[in-house]
Parts: sequence; C-alpha cells; structure tokens
Amino acid sequence: MNLEDIENPLFLQNLSKKELKKLCEEIRQFLIENISKTGGHLASNLGVVELTVALHYVFHNQNDKLIFDVGHQAYTHKILTGRAKDFKNLRKTGGLSGFTNYDESPYDCWESGHSSTSISALSGFLLAKRNGNKEIGDVVSIIGDSSIANGMAFEALNFASTIDGERPIIILNDNKMGISKSVGALSNMFNMMRRLKFYRGLKRFLIKINPRFVVNWFHQVKRSIKGLIQTDNIFEDMGYDYYGPYDGNDLNDVIRALERAKISKSPCVIHFLTKKGLGYEKAENDELGSYHGVGPFDISTGKSLKIYEENEFSYSEIVAKSLIETRRKLPFILINPATMVGNRLIKFEKEFPQSIFDVGIAEEHAATMAAAIALNKQKVALLIYSTFAQRCYDQILNDIARRNLNVVMGFDRAGLIAEEGSTHQGIYDIAMLNSMPNITICMGKNLAETKALISYAFKIEGPVVVRYPKANEIYTSDLEVLDMRWQYEEKGSALTIISYGHDVMRIKRLINENNIDASLVNARFIRPIDKQLLIKIFDDGNPILVVEQVVKNGSLGQLISSYANEVGKKINLTHLAIDTDEYIIQASYNDLLNKYHLDNESILKEMKKICA
Amino acid sequence: MNLEDIENPLFLQNLSKKELKKLCEEIRQFLIENISKTGGHLASNLGVVELTVALHYVFHNQNDKLIFDVGHQAYTHKILTGRAKDFKNLRKTGGLSGFTNYDESPYDCWESGHSSTSISALSGFLLAKRNGNKEIGDVVSIIGDSSIANGMAFEALNFASTIDGERPIIILNDNKMGISKSVGALSNMFNMMRRLKFYRGLKRFLIKINPRFVVNWFHQVKRSIKGLIQTDNIFEDMGYDYYGPYDGNDLNDVIRALERAKISKSPCVIHFLTKKGLGYEKAENDELGSYHGVGPFDISTGKSLKIYEENEFSYSEIVAKSLIETRRKLPFILINPATMVGNRLIKFEKEFPQSIFDVGIAEEHAATMAAAIALNKQKVALLIYSTFAQRCYDQILNDIARRNLNVVMGFDRAGLIAEEGSTHQGIYDIAMLNSMPNITICMGKNLAETKALISYAFKIEGPVVVRYPKANEIYTSDLEVLDMRWQYEEKGSALTIISYGHDVMRIKRLINENNIDASLVNARFIRPIDKQLLIKIFDDGNPILVVEQVVKNGSLGQLISSYANEVGKKINLTHLAIDTDEYIIQASYNDLLNKYHLDNESILKEMKKICA
Repeated sequence: MNLEDIENPLFLQNLSKKELKKLCEEIRQFLIENISKTGGHLASNLGVVELTVALHYVFHNQNDKLIFDVGHQAYTHKILTGRAKDFKNLRKTGGLSGFTNYDESPYDCWESGHSSTSISALSGFLLAKRNGNKEIGDVVSIIGDSSIANGMAFEALNFASTIDGERPIIILNDNKMGISKSVGALSNMFNMMRRLKFYRGLKRFLIKINPRFVVNWFHQVKRSIKGLIQTDNIFEDMGYDYYGPYDGNDLNDVIRALERAKISKSPCVIHFLTKKGLGYEKAENDELGSYHGVGPFDISTGKSLKIYEENEFSYSEIVAKSLIETRRKLPFILINPATMVGNRLIKFEKEFPQSIFDVGIAEEHAATMAAAIALNKQKVALLIYSTFAQRCYDQILNDIARRNLNVVMGFDRAGLIAEEGSTHQGIYDIAMLNSMPNITICMGKNLAETKALISYAFKIEGPVVVRYPKANEIYTSDLEVLDMRWQYEEKGSALTIISYGHDVMRIKRLINENNIDASLVNARFIRPIDKQLLIKIFDDGNPILVVEQVVKNGSLGQLISSYANEVGKKINLTHLAIDTDEYIIQASYNDLLNKYHLDNESILKEMKKICA
Repeated sequence: MNLEDIENPLFLQNLSKKELKKLCEEIRQFLIENISKTGGHLASNLGVVELTVALHYVFHNQNDKLIFDVGHQAYTHKILTGRAKDFKNLRKTGGLSGFTNYDESPYDCWESGHSSTSISALSGFLLAKRNGNKEIGDVVSIIGDSSIANGMAFEALNFASTIDGERPIIILNDNKMGISKSVGALSNMFNMMRRLKFYRGLKRFLIKINPRFVVNWFHQVKRSIKGLIQTDNIFEDMGYDYYGPYDGNDLNDVIRALERAKISKSPCVIHFLTKKGLGYEKAENDELGSYHGVGPFDISTGKSLKIYEENEFSYSEIVAKSLIETRRKLPFILINPATMVGNRLIKFEKEFPQSIFDVGIAEEHAATMAAAIALNKQKVALLIYSTFAQRCYDQILNDIARRNLNVVMGFDRAGLIAEEGSTHQGIYDIAMLNSMPNITICMGKNLAETKALISYAFKIEGPVVVRYPKANEIYTSDLEVLDMRWQYEEKGSALTIISYGHDVMRIKRLINENNIDASLVNARFIRPIDKQLLIKIFDDGNPILVVEQVVKNGSLGQLISSYANEVGKKINLTHLAIDTDEYIIQASYNDLLNKYHLDNESILKEMKKICA
C-alpha cells in the first residue's frame, strides 16, 4: 500500500495479520529511505515498528491515549496517523517534528522531548479521567529501558499503581540501550529478566515433574541463579502485574500481549524486547548508539554524507579532546548522564575506562555525586547538554554552588538548537546559572578558546560552567586563557558590541565586511562580569549593543544594565536576545537566528541604526 | 554521664551494652527537654537514638563516613560528636544548626537539607576513595523510607551497587513516615516487608520440616501471599544484599546487624524499623506528623507554647482555606509532594479526600502530572515549598510553562527563611520562574490579598505562581483582586518605592511612622510587570527604590532596570535585595533581614539617603 495514503490508524482493523506484517516491512523500508535523506532518529524507530503497529491495532478507540516517552521513537506512529507524506521535511524548518507534537496531530496526546515523563503524564491523564474528562479511554505509556531508570519515571511508577479504580498500562520497550548502552543495576536486572524467559519455562516444567527436586535445587544453587527462577521483579514489587519479556518484533506475540493487557483490570507492565536498528544491518550491529540520531547517510555504506573539511571539528569533539589531554596530566573523574556518543566521550572512555562514569539518564544523581567527589578533594568534571542540565537545577544550586565546590561542568549544545524544536533549546542555562551563588560561566569564541577554557576551568576555585554550541568549525591555531578578563576583538568609536561564544567571530566578520566603526568585546566570562572593563565602557559613553542567544530574563544583558544602575552610570543599551516568552520553533540554525532577530542582517541593521 | 562532657564518639567503645542502653535513655530525655524549649525536629530524632549510637559504636574509625540524608535527624549524632552543650541555641542565630553542617564538625561529612541526596553522596565518596583519597574508610548512608522513594535516591541506588571494588552500606531508617505518612507503591512494599519478618521465619521452619508441603502451599496461596515468602525485593533486584527488617530501637539487634554489614563484601541495604517519637508518647501516637518539626512546647501537655492572637493565621493556613473555598465551587485536583502538614492541607484532605494527592517526595512527578491534568482540561493546583520547587525546574519549564498550561502553583515559604539555614531559603524562585516562558508570578501584601490571589489564579490563562512567606499575621478584612495592575499604597513626591509581599505593609508603616515623602507601589504581580505604571514612574523622574527578599540576579529589580533600558528611559534605581553570591546563614527572621540589609533600619536609611 502507499503509506502516504494513510489518513488514520483505523484501516489497521481491516488488515489480516499477514497484511499487518507486510505493512511493517513497508514502514521499515520507508523509514530507512527517508531518514537516509533527511537524517533523524533511525535505530530506535526501526526497533518499534511492530510494537507501534500493534499498539494502534489493539488500542483503536479514538479516546485511547498512546503516550510516547521522549517522543523521538514515534515515526511509525506518525506514519499511521497520516503523516507519511511529511517525512520529506522531517526536522526541517516548518516541517515534520522529530518528536510528538500537539500542533501536528490530535494523536500526539503528549509532547515531551526530555526523557522519562510519560508515566507522570499517564498518571495525569488518569486523574483527569477520574475528575470527569470523558474523552479519555485506555491510557498507555511507552517507555524505554534507559528512560525507566531515571528517577522521575520511578517516582511516577511509585504513584501510578496506587490510583484508585484506574488501570495504567506501561509498555517497557527494552532495546538494551537508550541513547547509548543502558547502565546501572536496573539494566543488570533487565538482563536477568531477559534470560528469565527460558528459566521460567524450565521451572514450570520441573515443578510439574518433581516439586521436591525443584526445592532442593532451589537451595543448592547460588543466590544469583535463584534470582533467575523467581518471578518477582521491581515492577511486581511496585504493584504492577508484570508480563514478559516478549519478542517485541514478533507482531503476533505483541498483539497477543497487548490484548491481554487491554482486558486486564490491574496496573500492568508489559516488557518487550526490541531490536534497535532492525532491518538495517549497520544500525543493528551498532553497540555505541552511533545510529541513534543520524544526519543524511549513504544506505549502502552506512556512511554519513557530510563531508568534513580539513581540521573541521565539532565543539563536542574539541571539548572531549581537551578533557583527554587534561586527564593525561591530572587524575580527575568524568561523569556523564547517558550522552556518551553525543558528547564524543568514547575515546576518553577507551583511554581512561576507570575515570569515566556514564550514570544513565540520571542528571540529579550525576550532579550531586560530582559535588561529593569535589568535597573529598578529588578533581571532577560533569559533561551534560544544556537542556538536560535543567533536570539538576537544585543539585547544582544546593549541592555544588551553595558550598562553592570545584566542579568543572561542560554544557554542550548551548544556545539556539537547530531541528530539535522547543524542548531541546540551550537558551535557559545562563539565567539558571546566574541565579545561583558562586558559579563562573564562560564560553569560547571559537574551538581553540573553548579548548583553552576547559583546561583553565580546572584551575578556577569553585564551580565553573564552560558552555559550547552544537556546531562545527575549522580549528585554527591554539590559544591560551590566562585570566577571566574580557577582551577587545575590535576597537572602534561609534558603538561597543558585547557578545560571547561563536557569535563573537560572526560579529567580527560583520564589522569588518561592512566597515562598521564599532568596538567588539568578547565577554568570554559571562560571570563574573568584567567590572573594570564595563566601567570603562560606561564612561566612554558609547551606545552598547549586547548580542546573545539566550532568553533575556537573567541574561548577561540584564546583568550589565543592572550593574550600570548599581554604579550610577547612565547607559544606552540595546539588547539582542530572545524574548523569554517566545516559543522556539523547529527550524534550521539560520532560520532560528532569523526568526529571533539574531541573524547577520538583524545585527547589522541594529549596528547601523545605532551608528546613524 | 553528663552528655555535655562528650568530646567525640570514641568513648562508646568503653561502654558495656547496658551502659550504651542507659546512654540512649539519657539522650532521649535530653532531646525531649531541649527541643521542648528551643523547638526543632523532635519525632524523627527520638526514633533514631539507638541507631545513631550503634552506628558510631560500630563505625568508629575516624575515616568512616556517616552520611545522614536530609540531616535533620542527626541530633544524637551531634550529641555524640561533642555538641550537646550547643543545644540551648539550636536553630538560633549563630547557634547549632538543625541540620548537619560542615562548619560545625568534621564528623558532619555531608550537608544536604533537601531530601534523598545521601546515596549520590555516598557514591561520590566511594569514587573519591577509589581515585586516591586515603582518608575515606567505610561509607554509610542513612536514609528514611520516604526519602528513598524519591527519584534521585533511586538513580543513586541504581548506580551505587555497580561501583567496582567498593561496597556501599545503606541504612534504611523505616519509620513508616517521612515528614508525614509515606505514600506510594514502595510504601506498600515496605509494609509488606515489615510483615515479611514473621513469614520468613515461618518459611524457614516449614522447609526444614517438609519441603514438599511448602512448595504445594506455594502454589495454592494467592499471589499476594506468595510475595510475602519470597526474599526478593526491590533492593535485591538492584544488586544489594538485603538484611532485615530489624527492630531499630533494640540496641543489641542494631549493633549485631551493623557488625554484619561491616564485614560484608557486597553492597548492602540494612532495613531498620524505628518508632518515630519513641519516648515521648504524644509524638509516638502522632499519625499526621505534627511532631516532625515543632516550636517550643509544654512537655506535660504536648501543647505549643506559642499564644495565638485573635484572627492570627499563618499564610499557609490562609492559602489552604482559600483552596477549600475554591474547591467547594470548582472541582480541581490538588497535588502536594510530602508537605501536607506544613502546607496545612489536612482539612482539605478531610473535606475532599478524592481531590487531593500527596505524591510523596516526588516534586518532578508532581509537576509533570499537574501538566498532564491541565492538558486534559481539568483544573489543577500544585502546592510546594519554594525551595523544593527547585527540584522540578525542568518539569515546570518544559512540561508546564513551555505550552502555557493552566496550572495554579502555590509556593510556600518564599523569601528569607528563619532558623533553617542555607539549604531552605525561598530566595531563588523569582529568578527561576522569570527565566521560563509564560509564567505569571504574584505575591500578596497581606493574608487577605494572598487569599484573593489564590482564587484569582484559577481565572488566569497559563501557569500562575502565588508566592507566600512563612509568617503569621492578623487577618483583617477581605479584599478582592480584579486585575494584574500594580497598586499605590502611598503617594508621595520624593521617591517611589516598589516592593511586593508582606514587605509592602512593613514599608508602608515605615513611611507613615517616619513621615517619608514617598510613593509606595505594591507590585503584587511580579510578572508580568505593570509596564503602563512603570512608564509613568520612569517619566515622573523620581528616584526608585526596589525592595525584595530574593537574590538580585533575575529579580524584579533587574527586570525593571532592563525594561527602562528597553524603552530608553534613564532611571535612578536603588535595589535592596540579596547579593546572589551570599551564603545565607542560620538566623532568626529579624537577624536575617538585618544581615542582608532588608531590615527596617536599612530600608529607612536608604529612603532618607535618597530623599536627602
């Protein structure tokens, strides 16, 4: 069938099992072909084709709610709900979102982006139903094995089984890796449960033949083996009926298991083993998670179509490199919450396996553990995406910053983020960090300065955050950072521009290309502000233009205007930043700059207006 | 013995078990007598006397680390480490901290305040040890049954059992209630494990006699009963050896269990049942948690010594009252994370048991669940302490604010907080909320306005936070809130003062008592700012004085100066607020105001200076 003709998932009811299986194969081919052209989340989506088809087949009432955790594994769901034709524009400006999205379809009943919210959402849906919302039928959360190990999912699991008269259905999509490999004790338990399948069958068989034998065996085998033949697990401990593990890529099995869940009266967890990347061999065999999110690639070779220039690196690569070099001299501990591939830490792990800890999707734990390491006078670094650092606001504030502990933090993907939409922006961190005590915040103007800042950060007393964007650049010559002072990149007489990060170099080019008579200050330490230089700038009396890719409230621009007030200087400050109330759209990087008036043209216009 | 003579816990080694038991009784009497005079955390401390004595008895190496979760149950620990004499000044300005505190004693090796950090801390200690810190011996986390149900503790449990070559010891102090009653599935599991003690003994006995009988019985009894005689539980699922539950108030039992843990080579969880309030009958029988934290009280009657004036209420009481009145007209759902007593919600629960959900110490889950309820068009409110709201920064930002959902949030204990020290201040919330999209923030000038704001909040589109302080006042006449405009409380001609919350009334009195020629504006909606009024104030040209009990970065004062910049107005603004880098000391409310220059004298001085 032509997938683009699908309007809604009701047609599934008219297909035979055989036709459903054929549909799965078609969807799988469609995904590989389309994602190879547009980029997107590949491996996770290939793994859940059968599961998603079966979910829509079994929960076909229009009021049934399918809540996809994270929402980047919902491509099949998008195809089945009439959006196949939009895959051409997947993750493009104004195109199909890579996540579930309220604006796209009424079938997208929950929108998350950040991991592990789906069981809390499910709880809220059930309470809303109980409170009188008649448009809610069965509520199903679909959550991965890594996401369920996050604390927030646990809090929700702990709650959801206690809702009177309502029955949560939780689908555990276990592909043995979230973004990269699953970690932690729970992951070990899942491993055990996978093996359990065989042992459980064996146990049932043996008990039938000779119960006494089983009991004796029970007490002879080691504790670890005993664990294998008991049916209890964490979900049963928490009040759920547990079913599984089933083969999540066997459509008949999945449908049968879901039908059983549908008629069950009790809270239940259905455990499916799915094969990440299934149908595309290179993704199937990928242990690192390199095919989790991909750019356009060649299907036959599996290689990225992106052509790297000489000395082109991403900021993530350069930071990881700098950490390896630092580690060779200094025995520090590196902590990362489940973004080892994105943060480019695989090489670090190879060279220093004893010094790096991937704690899984556990940002809260990561930050407090880092605090405790620093408290005990060991050097420690925490690498995290800017947007995920929001998950450990309290731990950074209370456990790290309050007592001024020496934790080096790298905030990756800071600033506007292309393609990901509103949930993954790195535009809140400056405000977040500025409201906490003692934190030094810095951002390099290019790869070399970022590298130097990482190494300088280990010498600073107290917590330091080094921000860096999701971007590639050409690495030019090394440079050193020796102090926290701001630096002039350009000297002019009509206005003073203050910015930080790679925007500094962009503005520098703009000034030169357009012969603007402006000074340009690289505010590489966003905090503490360079008061000495600022007083000089205030006294010069030139108009000031601050450019930054963060929300206005709590930004450097606001710190500067309030500092001027504090020291009684009258200034004329124009602030190019993002209005705090803005909803950030899904778009390419340039389109984002454009939309929020941070593109070259807008900056140039502002410079000219001020100079005029 | 005289407890005040204790210098460190080494003397415990010289005592017989009988003497140790006598010591426990002395400590218990000491705690009751002292806390009845000073106030403090009573019930939790009475429950852990034997446990704490045993911990110091067994883990007596100077490098052994006892990590108390939350840290408000460490009074016995304080006595044993030489601080009995300081109990006279418990929680007073410059006096003994109610929590563990690095500045007080090297025996306080972790300081938390917020719940559920101790297992992450323990993990950090073990990694620091592994990385070369020779001054770390055995590391023990002591955590309560409510705290361990928090997501962050789960993340840490998931990690700690996987640290190569290190052995975490986790003491589960199970008193069946954290601050108030434990909730959720885990709590049900603990209930089961408590009963398990008997069944396990029975099982061992039966198996000895006739294994076949046991197996048959196994398969005949219902699943729930079967659960009871299996040894697996969530801790074993997660890689820990589980011991218990033991009677945590039987000193011999506790010592024996801890000694076993000490020689164990594997990660372990030791489960103790302790009796909250033990030794003081009124606290023992308290099911609500009213004796969790107390003010000075009469030992014989158990009654608070505080004398209430006619119509005196706390802000928490008035908010709860307003919520009850609102609920009578509007069927909303109220969510609270484990602060039912502090938030005064017991009456609400009695009247509307089906509409209120105490989710336990699960702020992240609470916020996202509220978002999902609002998304499904049901009215919902979330009551939380300002400081604990830090735990759900990402969930408020991403799940509630990003999509502008109608969630009414009450932030209790906003502003400077007496007696609690640096970890419990309500001074970061304005900055935190100001950096998020769409959130309306308000605070009433007195009880009546706060009450009116709660009811008005349900009419506002999008998320609303109503802040209120930890304070008592006399309720005067009702008033209504009809719009978000700021209001003049005083009109004068020499300066304009802008403030919000109960500071407004304090400043009003100052103006009147001292005949200051000032205008006073009640900025009851901190966001959105009243732009129309501000333009008028800017145009008047009077000096502006902003007074607020929050950190400066991200505050209203900064919003005002940056707005003046935005509209090109030159203003003269003085900002009385708390420097963001300040470490907030433990002190009485007046001493705090004093220390951070927000007391009457400082404000008056500033007013006079500006008027001069």
